[in-house]
Amino acid sequence: MATTPSRELVAVPNPHPDRVYQVEMVCPEFTTLCPMTGQPDFATITITYEPGPSIVELKSLKLYLWSFRNEGHFHEDVTNLILNDFVAAAQPRFARIVARFNVRGGITTTVTAEYRSDNYPAWA
Amino acid sequence: MATTPSRELVAVPNPHPDRVYQVEMVCPEFTTLCPMTGQPDFATITITYEPGPSIVELKSLKLYLWSFRNEGHFHEDVTNLILNDFVAAAQPRFARIVARFNVRGGITTTVTAEYRSDNYPAWA
Amino acid sequence: MATTPSRELVAVPNPHPDRVYQVEMVCPEFTTLCPMTGQPDFATITITYEPGPSIVELKSLKLYLWSFRNEGHFHEDVTNLILNDFVAAAQPRFARIVARFNVRGGITTTVTAEYRSDNYPAWA
Amino acid sequence: MATTPSRELVAVPNPHPDRVYQVEMVCPEFTTLCPMTGQPDFATITITYEPGPSIVELKSLKLYLWSFRNEGHFHEDVTNLILNDFVAAAQPRFARIVARFNVRGGITTTVTAEYRSDNYPAWA
Amino acid sequence: MATTPSRELVAVPNPHPDRVYQVEMVCPEFTTLCPMTGQPDFATITITYEPGPSIVELKSLKLYLWSFRNEGHFHEDVTNLILNDFVAAAQPRFARIVARFNVRGGITTTVTAEYRSDNYPAWA
Amino acid sequence: MATTPSRELVAVPNPHPDRVYQVEMVCPEFTTLCPMTGQPDFATITITYEPGPSIVELKSLKLYLWSFRNEGHFHEDVTNLILNDFVAAAQPRFARIVARFNVRGGITTTVTAEYRSDNYPAWA
Amino acid sequence: MATTPSRELVAVPNPHPDRVYQVEMVCPEFTTLCPMTGQPDFATITITYEPGPSIVELKSLKLYLWSFRNEGHFHEDVTNLILNDFVAAAQPRFARIVARFNVRGGITTTVTAEYRSDNYPAWA
Amino acid sequence: MATTPSRELVAVPNPHPDRVYQVEMVCPEFTTLCPMTGQPDFATITITYEPGPSIVELKSLKLYLWSFRNEGHFHEDVTNLILNDFVAAAQPRFARIVARFNVRGGITTTVTAEYRSDNYPAWA
Amino acid sequence: MATTPSRELVAVPNPHPDRVYQVEMVCPEFTTLCPMTGQPDFATITITYEPGPSIVELKSLKLYLWSFRNEGHFHEDVTNLILNDFVAAAQPRFARIVARFNVRGGITTTVTAEYRSDNYPAWA
Amino acid sequence: MATTPSRELVAVPNPHPDRVYQVEMVCPEFTTLCPMTGQPDFATITITYEPGPSIVELKSLKLYLWSFRNEGHFHEDVTNLILNDFVAAAQPRFARIVARFNVRGGITTTVTAEYRSDNYPAWA
Repeated sequence: MATTPSRELVAVPNPHPDRVYQVEMVCPEFTTLCPMTGQPDFATITITYEPGPSIVELKSLKLYLWSFRNEGHFHEDVTNLILNDFVAAAQPRFARIVARFNVRGGITTTVTAEYRSDNYPAWA
Repeated sequence: MATTPSRELVAVPNPHPDRVYQVEMVCPEFTTLCPMTGQPDFATITITYEPGPSIVELKSLKLYLWSFRNEGHFHEDVTNLILNDFVAAAQPRFARIVARFNVRGGITTTVTAEYRSDNYPAWA
Repeated sequence: MATTPSRELVAVPNPHPDRVYQVEMVCPEFTTLCPMTGQPDFATITITYEPGPSIVELKSLKLYLWSFRNEGHFHEDVTNLILNDFVAAAQPRFARIVARFNVRGGITTTVTAEYRSDNYPAWA
Repeated sequence: MATTPSRELVAVPNPHPDRVYQVEMVCPEFTTLCPMTGQPDFATITITYEPGPSIVELKSLKLYLWSFRNEGHFHEDVTNLILNDFVAAAQPRFARIVARFNVRGGITTTVTAEYRSDNYPAWA
Repeated sequence: MATTPSRELVAVPNPHPDRVYQVEMVCPEFTTLCPMTGQPDFATITITYEPGPSIVELKSLKLYLWSFRNEGHFHEDVTNLILNDFVAAAQPRFARIVARFNVRGGITTTVTAEYRSDNYPAWA
Repeated sequence: MATTPSRELVAVPNPHPDRVYQVEMVCPEFTTLCPMTGQPDFATITITYEPGPSIVELKSLKLYLWSFRNEGHFHEDVTNLILNDFVAAAQPRFARIVARFNVRGGITTTVTAEYRSDNYPAWA
Repeated sequence: MATTPSRELVAVPNPHPDRVYQVEMVCPEFTTLCPMTGQPDFATITITYEPGPSIVELKSLKLYLWSFRNEGHFHEDVTNLILNDFVAAAQPRFARIVARFNVRGGITTTVTAEYRSDNYPAWA
Repeated sequence: MATTPSRELVAVPNPHPDRVYQVEMVCPEFTTLCPMTGQPDFATITITYEPGPSIVELKSLKLYLWSFRNEGHFHEDVTNLILNDFVAAAQPRFARIVARFNVRGGITTTVTAEYRSDNYPAWA
Repeated sequence: MATTPSRELVAVPNPHPDRVYQVEMVCPEFTTLCPMTGQPDFATITITYEPGPSIVELKSLKLYLWSFRNEGHFHEDVTNLILNDFVAAAQPRFARIVARFNVRGGITTTVTAEYRSDNYPAWA
Repeated sequence: MATTPSRELVAVPNPHPDRVYQVEMVCPEFTTLCPMTGQPDFATITITYEPGPSIVELKSLKLYLWSFRNEGHFHEDVTNLILNDFVAAAQPRFARIVARFNVRGGITTTVTAEYRSDNYPAWA
C-alpha cells in the first residue's frame, strides 16, 4: 500500500486536443528545505496550463511535488525548476507556476513564472 | 411526483434575440464517478453563455447534470463533453464551462473550456 | 402616508452633463413571480449607468422595482425589460443591468444585459 | 403546475421521537408589507426547534411563509405570530424564531422569540 | 417633507407583553463631536432589549440618534446616556447598548453598558 | 484498484483510552436521494465524538457515507440513522452528527443529533 | 486645541514630480444632508490621483470633507463637486472620486467621476 | 506640534461610576524589540476593562504604548507588565490584556492576562 | 548557520508565576507521514496553555514540531503525544492541543486533547 | 546573535536570467515616524518586481525596511525612496512599490510607484 515520491510527471493523451482550454491545479501542501539553514519551507503551488498533446496525470503530480520534501531549494529557483519540468513533460501551449511561500522574517514571498509555446499569441 | 435524470437539454426561444446579453448558471451539486477507482467525484459547474436563437430551460439543465451521477468520467474530459452538449442544444454566440472539482490527493483541479461561434469578435 | 408601486421611472436633469461619470445602484429587494408555477422569485438588481441628459431619481426607482412584485416574469426576459425601461426613461450613454436570482433547483442564475448609445466608444 | 400560498403548516410524525434533537431551517426569502406605508419589507427567518411528536414538512413551510407576502405586519408582531403558528402545528419541545429584517432608515432590526414546552429543562 | 432631529424616543404598546423576547437594532450611522477638539466622531450603535410594556418605534429611534449630530460627547459618557434615555422611554426588562467608535490615534474603542430591571433573573 | 461503498464502519483500538479527548470529521461530500421525488440531495456531515474503547478508521467512514448515494432518505431520519450506526460501531463517550443540507425551495435545513453514554456528565 | 472645518484643500510640492505615481485616500467618515428631507446621508469617499506639481496635505483633506457635514447635497452632484475642488487645488495628471453612499430605500448608490489632464494618455 | 512617548497612563473620573460597564480598546500598532536579537516585534494589543473610579484617557494610552517602541521585551512578560501598569493607573473592577504577536518562525503567539478586583464576582 | 530538528522542548522560568494567564501558539506548518502509506500529512497545531513554573521557549517549539517531519504517526495518536511531551516539559496548570489535519478522502479531521493539573478548578 | 538594521539591499545573481518572471514580497511590519509630529506611522509594503541580472536577498530586505524605524518620512516621499533604492540595488526589468499606511485622521492612504526599465514593453 506504500507509495514513494517520484520526480517523473506522467503525461497522458489530451482527450480534446482540438480545443484550447485551461486546467488549474492548486497544491497547498508543498514543502522543501531552506538551502542556507536546512529548515523547512512551505508553499502553495498553483499550476495553470493550456494542454497541448498531453495532460498531466493528477497522482503523478502529487508524487512529483512530494519529491522536493527533503531537498534544499531557493524560492525563485524552485519555482522555475517546476515550470521547466512541467513544460518538458506536458508540452503545453501555455503554463504558469505561482508559488506562494509562507511568511519568513515577517515577509511573504510569491514567485510567478510563465511559459508560452512558440505559436502562442503575443496578445493573450 | 418522481422525476428522472435526462441527457436532453431543452432550448426555448430567446425572448430578446436582438440584444447580446449574458446568462450565468452556477451548479454546486455536480457529482460523477472516478473512472479509475469508481469513487465519487464532486464539482461546482459554472455555465456562462451569450444566447443565440435559444436559451436553455433551467429545469432541463438540472436533470442533465443529474444524468452524470453514476457514470465514470475524467475531469478534463467531462468538462469538454458538457460544453459540447450545451453548444449543440443552445447554439450560443459564446459559452464557457468552468468545473471546480473538490480536492483529491491534496490538490484541487479546475477545468475551463470555451466555445465561440464563427461570427464572435476576436477581441472580445 | 401610504405609497404605491409605479412603473414610471422619474428622470431629472443631470447636474454635470459635460462630464462622463458613472452611477451604480444595488437593489437587493427585487421580487417577482415565476410564470410557470406562480411561486415567488427573488433577485438582487444592480444598475450601472453613465448619465446622459438625465439622472434617475432614487425614490422612483424603488417604486418601479416594487411594481414587478405580483407579476409573472422569466429571468432572462425581465432583465431585458428593466434595461429597456431604464434606457427609455434616462437616455443614458451606457447602462447595464445585472440580475442575480436566488438559487432554484440547486442552480443560481445571473442575467447581464447592456445598452450602449450610438456614440459610445466601441472599445470601452 | 401552479401552487398557492397557504397558512397551514403540515406536521408529519417524528421518525425518532425518543431522541432529543434539533432542526434548523433558514428562509432568506420572507417578505411582507409595512402596515404604515404599504411598502415591502424583507427578512431572513431562521426557525430552530426540537421536535416533539411531529416534524414540520418543508414544502408546507415554504407555502406558509409565502402567505405573508401581501399582508401588512409589524416586525415585532409577525415574529411572534410565526412562533405561535409553528408551536400550534408542531407541538415542539422547544422552538425559536429569529427574524432579521433588512435595513430601514439606516437601522437593521432583528427580533428573536422562543417557546419552551412545560417539561423543558430550565437550565437548557 | 423635511424632518427634524428629536431627543424624544416614542414607545408604543408591546403587542406580545406576555412573552419574553428580544429586539436588536443596529445603527451604523451615529455621529457626534469630540468635546475636546470639536471634530466629528463616528460609531455603530447596537441596541438589544427585551421589551416590557412597550416597544420603541423605529423612526423615533432614527430621529433620536440624529439629535446627537452636532453636540459634544465623550465615548464612555454618551453610551451610558443613550442607555439611560432608552430605559426611561421603554421600561424594558433588559437593555444593552454597544457603541463601536471609529479608530482615533490608531486605537478603536468600544463601550458596552447594560440595564437589568429589578425582577430580571441574576443568572441570565 | 476499484473500491466499493460499504455500510460497515471499522473501529480500531483507541491509542489513548485513558484520556478524554475529541475527534471531529467534516465530510462535505454526502449525497442521497429525496424519497418523494427521487432527486439528489446534498449535505455536509460533521461528526464530533469523544472516543471510548475505539476510534473510527477514516477510510471506512468515507465508504460508509458513500453507501447512502443511491438510497432515498428524509433529512431528519438519515441524520439519526448515521448517529445510531456510529454509536453502535464506536461505543463513544459522546457523539454528535450535524447534517447541513443544501437549499431546497429557498430553505436551508440543518439537523443536529447527539448521543451521550450512560456515565457522561449531565452538565457537560 | 479646537479645529474647524474648512473648504480649502492645501497643496504642497510633489517631492517626486518626475515620476508618474498614484495616491489613494479612503475616507469612510463623509456625511452630508439630504436636500429634500434634511436628513443625514453617509458615504465612503475614495480619492485616487496621480500627482502633478502638488500633492494634497492629508489634514486639510480631513477638514475639507468635514465642511460638508451640515450642508444639503445630492449624491451625483456632490461627487462631481469634490472632484472639481480637488482638481482645482492639486492640478493632478489624473483624479477619480468614488462615493459609496449608505443604503436608502433598500438601494445602495455609488457615484464615480474621473478627471484626466490634457496630456493624459487616452488608452490608460 | 511634536509629541513624545510617555509611560504615564492618565486616568480621569468615571462619568458613570454607579453602573458596571465595559470599555474595549484595540491597538494594532504596538511594536517593541526582541531582547535576544534586537529585532522588531509587532502585536495588536486589546485592552478590555470595567471602570472603577476612573477611566483611562485615550491619548495617554497611545503615548504609553509608543513608549515600548525601542525597548527589549519578551512576549509573556510585556503583556503582564502592561496589565500591571493599567491596573495601577485605573483601579478597574476588571481588566484583560490580549497581545497577539505577529508570526515568528512560522508560529503566531497570543498572550492573555486578566486582573479581577477583590470584590469581583467569582462566577463572572 | 544550519539548525536541526530536536524532540527537546526548552522550558524557561515563568516571569509572572503568581498570575494565572494564558499563552496560545498557532503552528500552521506541522507535517508528518501517514504510517499506512508513507505519504505526507499536514496539520495546523494550536497549543493553548496556562503556565505553571515555566514557559516554553518559542524556538525550541519550532524545532520540536519539525522533528516529526519524517516519522509516521496516526492523527489521534500524535495529537496526544504532543500533549504528553508538552505537559512533561512545561508542567502547565492547563494545556490543550488542537490538530487540524488537511482533507484526506474528502474528509477533514481535527483532534483536540486537554490536560488539567490536579489543582485545576473543575468548573473552568 | 544580535542583528542590526542596514540600508544596504543585497543583490545575488538571478538563477534564471533568461526567463521573464515575477517576485512579490509583502512586508506588513514597516514603521517610520511622522516628520511633523514625531509619532509612529505604520504601513504594509508590497514589492513586486521582474528580476533582471539580480534578485534581492530576503534577509537584507528585512534589515533594509527596519532601517526606517526611527527616521521621519512623509508617505509619498518614502514610497518613492524605497523604489529608488530597490531599483539601484536590483536593476530589475520592472518594479512596483505599494505602501498601504494605517488610518490617520479617519483617512487611509496608499501610495503606488512603479519603475520600468528602458526596454520594458509599453503595453505591459
